[in-house]
Amino acid sequence: MPKLRKDPIMGRWVIIADERAQRPHDFHTTVQKPERTHDCPFCEGNEHNTPPEVDALRDPDSQPNEPGWRVRVVRNKFPALRAEGAVDRQGDALYETMAAVGAHEVIIDSPRHVASLSELPAEAVRDVFQVYRDRLRIHKQDRRFVHGIVFKNVGAGAGASLEHTHSQLMVTPIVPINIWQEITGSLRYYNDRGRCVFCEIVDEELKDGSRVVMETDHFVAFCPYAGRFPFEIWVVPRRHDSHYENIAPLALEDLGALMKLLLHNLEEKLERPPYNYIIHSSPFDHPGLLHYHWHIEIIPRLTQVAGFEWGTGFYINPVPPEQAAEQLRAAHPSSAPSS
Amino acid sequence: MPKLRKDPIMGRWVIIADERAQRPHDFHTTVQKPERTHDCPFCEGNEHNTPPEVDALRDPDSQPNEPGWRVRVVRNKFPALRAEGAVDRQGDALYETMAAVGAHEVIIDSPRHVASLSELPAEAVRDVFQVYRDRLRIHKQDRRFVHGIVFKNVGAGAGASLEHTHSQLMVTPIVPINIWQEITGSLRYYNDRGRCVFCEIVDEELKDGSRVVMETDHFVAFCPYAGRFPFEIWVVPRRHDSHYENIAPLALEDLGALMKLLLHNLEEKLERPPYNYIIHSSPFDHPGLLHYHWHIEIIPRLTQVAGFEWGTGFYINPVPPEQAAEQLRAAHPSSAPSS
Repeated sequence: MPKLRKDPIMGRWVIIADERAQRPHDFHTTVQKPERTHDCPFCEGNEHNTPPEVDALRDPDSQPNEPGWRVRVVRNKFPALRAEGAVDRQGDALYETMAAVGAHEVIIDSPRHVASLSELPAEAVRDVFQVYRDRLRIHKQDRRFVHGIVFKNVGAGAGASLEHTHSQLMVTPIVPINIWQEITGSLRYYNDRGRCVFCEIVDEELKDGSRVVMETDHFVAFCPYAGRFPFEIWVVPRRHDSHYENIAPLALEDLGALMKLLLHNLEEKLERPPYNYIIHSSPFDHPGLLHYHWHIEIIPRLTQVAGFEWGTGFYINPVPPEQAAEQLRAAHPSSAPSS
Repeated sequence: MPKLRKDPIMGRWVIIADERAQRPHDFHTTVQKPERTHDCPFCEGNEHNTPPEVDALRDPDSQPNEPGWRVRVVRNKFPALRAEGAVDRQGDALYETMAAVGAHEVIIDSPRHVASLSELPAEAVRDVFQVYRDRLRIHKQDRRFVHGIVFKNVGAGAGASLEHTHSQLMVTPIVPINIWQEITGSLRYYNDRGRCVFCEIVDEELKDGSRVVMETDHFVAFCPYAGRFPFEIWVVPRRHDSHYENIAPLALEDLGALMKLLLHNLEEKLERPPYNYIIHSSPFDHPGLLHYHWHIEIIPRLTQVAGFEWGTGFYINPVPPEQAAEQLRAAHPSSAPSS
């Protein structure tokens, strides 16, 4: 019998329909590999093929837009938001508009042409997460901007148009609605029970254990109780903090090693699926919130999202999170490339 | 310069980024046609290849599960919700669950093997919308069920696994979160201004005209001001009503003709894109609401939804709604098949 489960943060219900896993069309994702070009603009030596560099981790004696970098940040070639100008909010009672002022950057995770963070040493993965932090800290100083979201698309099925491992950062003059709903949902929980709902979830997941995929000194990775997607994973810091950009050096170190291994296991179990991950964090102009807790959501793109999900926000997950976690834990650790 | 626009019902912001329309990957949707099988289970004569019929519009002297029908309703072969049993809500403070009790039905729109409602006579399209109404009225009598959603997936890119034109109905024991957010968003507007936000939008769209695609005696079809997707269309009844199942015979007649022509124009302009439509309507157990207004949302699936949209609910629409409406109005009416 399929079950409904409720997400305690958003209040959204999900159908956990394990009997649908046998559906003929499930998981027959066409592996549409992005085309690998000989002149990949993200490879070291091809720096002239991207928009100008805005930031980089690079050797002290190297020059911007030249080789010698470990992580490189450029503006998106087709930015959805522009850095120039005022926010200029306008509108009547019904319709409001403002200039799409913000930032849209591409973070090139590695000078080498690899398709996944899992192929890099743990220290290089840490460098990527450090650059996320540094970019958010820089944008936070611009009073026009109120929120920053870091995300990664891997594989054409997840929206990537280039294979070379990269991430994106969008900084917006408004709070995106899903983040806002998480914040208000977690505030409701906090007002009811006096505690951060994410802290409660971490405690509950560690106590129960059945949905935990990995745990480290600083993080717990688990398949959420009311996950919308098969093999969805959340990475939540043990220590309460509402803002990702506050992450401490030791936690960054830990996160690099964890993400490398987690993505490796996901790729091994699901045969390199397309996936997205997104860092959910508080708006820049909010102080440290007691009720909201930054975290990373990893979403493999195995099922087609159809009209029902669009129309309702009501998802059907054909793999119970407990089964997904069990399989992800069982991925063979010895095949993990040593870093 | 791209602009941000705010949806007045949900409060969500959308980037209207017309300069991105030139992006190389935009609209390069692979036309993945669902496989046409010789033994299509939805064709007249193959009734034995579907689960048993639960309802039909059929000739008075024909038998269930035999030829002689115009619209036929069967249970989904892989139902996500089951008709049997009690709702049985359980849970502790953090996690709640209930049995996935409900209904999941397939409405076979036509005995003939056609891929779109636009290929049917207007009266046949009306029949389909009448069956939606009738099924909702029947399920509404079951006190376990609180909401029904009617939707259609066309094309593999929109989640359809069969080509033969069909729709689906899901009846749930809870209110899906997006519908709930629309209802609370429209209540907030009503409390502020004393009027239904959808009624205001209809007035504003008719006054402005630039986003209107078609209008009839009973309906206005327009590209919404803050549409999330290129060529997104809403069909809103002029007369305020919160529940689709209250639709009157004359409005049904009108809707059949409108939907046929609207889908025809969409298919002509966008070369038969994959799309979904969803009827948004109030929960069964709510009385007639003054603040909520049923409507249909039509969503062509032209762009890949990537990590940013998932993570944030913040969409990038590369085609301004005014341009989309202009193109949809300009589709050649003389090529519309006469009905």
